Amino acid sequence: MRVLGIDPGLRSMGWGVIEADGPRLRHVANGQCRSEGTDLAERLLSLAAQLRAVVAAHAPDAAAVEQVFVNRDGAGTLKLGQARGIAMLIPAEAGLAVGEYSPSAIKKAVVGTGGAAKAQVAHMVSILLPGAVPAGPDAADALAIAICHAHHRRAGQGLAAALARAAS
Amino acid sequence: MRVLGIDPGLRSMGWGVIEADGPRLRHVANGQCRSEGTDLAERLLSLAAQLRAVVAAHAPDAAAVEQVFVNRDGAGTLKLGQARGIAMLIPAEAGLAVGEYSPSAIKKAVVGTGGAAKAQVAHMVSILLPGAVPAGPDAADALAIAICHAHHRRAGQGLAAALARAAS
Repeated sequence: MRVLGIDPGLRSMGWGVIEADGPRLRHVANGQCRSEGTDLAERLLSLAAQLRAVVAAHAPDAAAVEQVFVNRDGAGTLKLGQARGIAMLIPAEAGLAVGEYSPSAIKKAVVGTGGAAKAQVAHMVSILLPGAVPAGPDAADALAIAICHAHHRRAGQGLAAALARAAS
Repeated sequence: MRVLGIDPGLRSMGWGVIEADGPRLRHVANGQCRSEGTDLAERLLSLAAQLRAVVAAHAPDAAAVEQVFVNRDGAGTLKLGQARGIAMLIPAEAGLAVGEYSPSAIKKAVVGTGGAAKAQVAHMVSILLPGAVPAGPDAADALAIAICHAHHRRAGQGLAAALARAAS
């Protein structure tokens, strides 16, 4: 299964694609979309076009976007929300189911504890995906999101298999 | 000039199309897109598809979206932001410039005062656009946004013409 992880942001949108074969993970690609343009509509359009190109180039089977809970100013939350709307829409348009994970769920899946520091997450991403060189912190976060989704999907499949065995 | 106004919301997205010929305004159509689906990605996809159909059906020349400043909880602001991202993206994808107006600018353009009540705005919309029957409060707001944009465009054109006359 090929998973696209997206770390939403209006200025920079991180993305990472991994291949998950059971417990084995492999890095495919990662990058950061930078929004271009002077007004908000142009910036969102630029992000949408870049994300669409990522989906077309790497043909993921599933996507996941970080769930954000923001306590900052309303204007900051609104900006992030607008970018996140695009991050959710583009994979959905390609027919992908889009998972959502909280920052603590992502840290827990990658590091083992929900309270891990950002540097620890980046370190574990490089260990779990040998050879991956994140294009920046947002791309590293996006790879962590993809790992989290692969982990949850596998756990779900294991549970489904166990339930099927129990029922048979 | 045909103007599409959009009142963004995740549950219900109001839209209104008017035709502006100098100071003359005419109602074309209005409605409310209701988001369908169980998860966020599906709901955003549903709103995007409905808005795209509105743009295709009414071929506006310009679009305008309400600028929102939210002091509510972060979760509410984030939801609204995600819907607003879609409201900005879809007209931009169709090559339209997307204006943004604050609630007070919209009220000022329609009623004459930035502090007007919602009912006053709806009343003035029905007077400025004879025959318009808004599909609901969000559609009435969307028509007000379209009126505001037409008003500002016309003021801008008047200014440009005056400057051209002064320069000649």
